[in-house]
Amino acid sequence: MTGLHHVAVAGGQDRTGEELFASLLGEPMHTEQGEGFTERMYDAGGPFLQTLEAGNEGVVRRFLDKRGPGLHHVAFLVDRLDDALADLDERGVPLIDREPRSGGMGTRVAFLHPSAAGGVLIELVEDPEGEVADG
Amino acid sequence: MTGLHHVAVAGGQDRTGEELFASLLGEPMHTEQGEGFTERMYDAGGPFLQTLEAGNEGVVRRFLDKRGPGLHHVAFLVDRLDDALADLDERGVPLIDREPRSGGMGTRVAFLHPSAAGGVLIELVEDPEGEVADG
Repeated sequence: MTGLHHVAVAGGQDRTGEELFASLLGEPMHTEQGEGFTERMYDAGGPFLQTLEAGNEGVVRRFLDKRGPGLHHVAFLVDRLDDALADLDERGVPLIDREPRSGGMGTRVAFLHPSAAGGVLIELVEDPEGEVADG
Repeated sequence: MTGLHHVAVAGGQDRTGEELFASLLGEPMHTEQGEGFTERMYDAGGPFLQTLEAGNEGVVRRFLDKRGPGLHHVAFLVDRLDDALADLDERGVPLIDREPRSGGMGTRVAFLHPSAAGGVLIELVEDPEGEVADG
């Protein structure tokens, strides 16, 4: 665990959030299409603020339908994701992903189940570049 | 705006979140009583992860009753809070606090209304010490 990687916000077509974040943090430094969402990364002084703009279906749309727009998850950077997952699994921490999958900006990621952390969805991120790549 | 100051999580008596955060980030470096809640600050590699443990009443309890446990707000560090609020107010950004109030660890803080940022509760923090004081 080497610290906070990003905080993610889920939203829909409303541009209010993107406009405020751009005015506070500058324009997004990276934009990428995920499965059913557009992901934007704002530089928040080391960690990123990530916005997830939902399309018509997918995990972000389902989150919006259930909880409305707002904070979605928090992501921590780890050095060795496979080791971290094996350790958490061994300790009985409930995981969504037992195996890493591809994340944005060339990272490997895995999510813990929200019940692992009192209702907070947590992502672990491993950056194979050793540093976050500038998109 | 100098970057992310903390990400806050609201919870109740359930210790699962605190235990996971302590295992990932180490024990809290600061604990403080707020009005109706206990605030703990975990070092997340620069920014903090803040947990808000609700008592029987107050803003955190009302949040839990309405939304359940989970991510509560995100806080950005600013150099001059009064100037930042005046600027946002002039631009018509909806504010909860038009005047700064006292925050944890000797800071001055103010909240924007969630409608300012697509449903995300945002706090601005000014640290008069010029750095976050170790509690």
